[in-house]
Amino acid sequence: MMGGRLLGLGVGPGDPELITLKALRLLQSAPVVAYFVAKAKHHAGQGGNAFGIIEQHLGQAQERLPLVYPVTTEKLEPPLTYETVISDFYDTAAEQVARHLDAGRDVAVICEGDPFFYGSYMYLHDRLAERYPSEVVPGVCSMLGSAAVLGVPLVYRNQSLSVLSGVLPEDELKQRLASADAAVVMKLGRNFDKVRRVLRALGRDGGAHYVERATMREQRIVPLDEVDPMASPYFSMVVIPGQRWRG
Amino acid sequence: MMGGRLLGLGVGPGDPELITLKALRLLQSAPVVAYFVAKAKHHAGQGGNAFGIIEQHLGQAQERLPLVYPVTTEKLEPPLTYETVISDFYDTAAEQVARHLDAGRDVAVICEGDPFFYGSYMYLHDRLAERYPSEVVPGVCSMLGSAAVLGVPLVYRNQSLSVLSGVLPEDELKQRLASADAAVVMKLGRNFDKVRRVLRALGRDGGAHYVERATMREQRIVPLDEVDPMASPYFSMVVIPGQRWRG
Repeated sequence: MMGGRLLGLGVGPGDPELITLKALRLLQSAPVVAYFVAKAKHHAGQGGNAFGIIEQHLGQAQERLPLVYPVTTEKLEPPLTYETVISDFYDTAAEQVARHLDAGRDVAVICEGDPFFYGSYMYLHDRLAERYPSEVVPGVCSMLGSAAVLGVPLVYRNQSLSVLSGVLPEDELKQRLASADAAVVMKLGRNFDKVRRVLRALGRDGGAHYVERATMREQRIVPLDEVDPMASPYFSMVVIPGQRWRG
Repeated sequence: MMGGRLLGLGVGPGDPELITLKALRLLQSAPVVAYFVAKAKHHAGQGGNAFGIIEQHLGQAQERLPLVYPVTTEKLEPPLTYETVISDFYDTAAEQVARHLDAGRDVAVICEGDPFFYGSYMYLHDRLAERYPSEVVPGVCSMLGSAAVLGVPLVYRNQSLSVLSGVLPEDELKQRLASADAAVVMKLGRNFDKVRRVLRALGRDGGAHYVERATMREQRIVPLDEVDPMASPYFSMVVIPGQRWRG
């Protein structure tokens, strides 16, 4: 029996023009297009960030397969934990996708940025790639989208780059940033104030840049000192470029 | 007086289909297309890696502007150093580009991977972006191209990613790799043996993947133990994915 192919397609950081020719071709050739979406957005008839990027390219005959997150940041009653709820969700989502693959239909899973760079697609890939043929198309990640719109070269020559999550504990963030040549801190949101405090303590706030929703219509670039820590969205980032090499 | 625009265009890691719609549009609209190329390749009538990726898209009327590296890895006689020679070269290249910008012509500088991720374009940007309007189009970097073709999710949830150069001294490599959740070591070439030795010493060689020229026609994936350290090209990479999160 010939199963369908699992396609993990990076669609870029937000600007619909930042999709690759290859991702677009495979997207348009797939009979089923799957996407992750938050419950509230789904109930409002919306399709999630990645879906919004590529919706214009879809044909009528392509089936949409929403994979609806059961939770986002709400508190859960014990014995439920975020980990168990989300793990069950990925199991279910993988089976939704597998049903199409079993029927011989390719499924394109669209991913904001790059599929293997902090993407939800990874959890489907880990569950399905051993059972079905798969192909992953890399995409422009949000980190490089941010550096581009900020106009700051990120990392020179033999410098090291540290990609960090704002969710990390303050001590660990401090330690990792202290030894970084160049760094990017992602997943800010309510972690912003902590991240800025660490950068100030290390004396690295002067060289740090802040951007929200880079390459999207709603993009905002704000001086680090002027960011309202209560209003920083999850899709924001701090970019600390490596020291300019005269070259 | 209205100057031309400096365009830094990421063209992706090698597969010509991994260029973005935006980079392709700007590439085709630019009257001048500049590219870096090694002297030997230029003298053999070739255009360099980035040029090979996009050559098929160029029109007859577009001017080609080769920026020819004076040196690559050869030994230099004192008082010449790699740093002074290359710095002079970038000064000259910037002036070659500026001549077109002064005449009001947009110049597209094509960059393998992403322009701000270890790219030569950065040295032109640092010299010209304050004097001319500029736009940078991010690209799919070789790191994410490598993870995609290896089929390994790179970095989960709140893991940190360390991007390292194989040129680093052995001690520093060891120290940085020891504290990394996920890591990528670029610029292998003759540094490969050192990098493998460090991974073995840290017990991380088992989870490390090796790939040469990812996404290119000549791509090779080889088990780490079987790599010939004398034959590893510069465009090779070691990818050490973060620990799988069940999710």
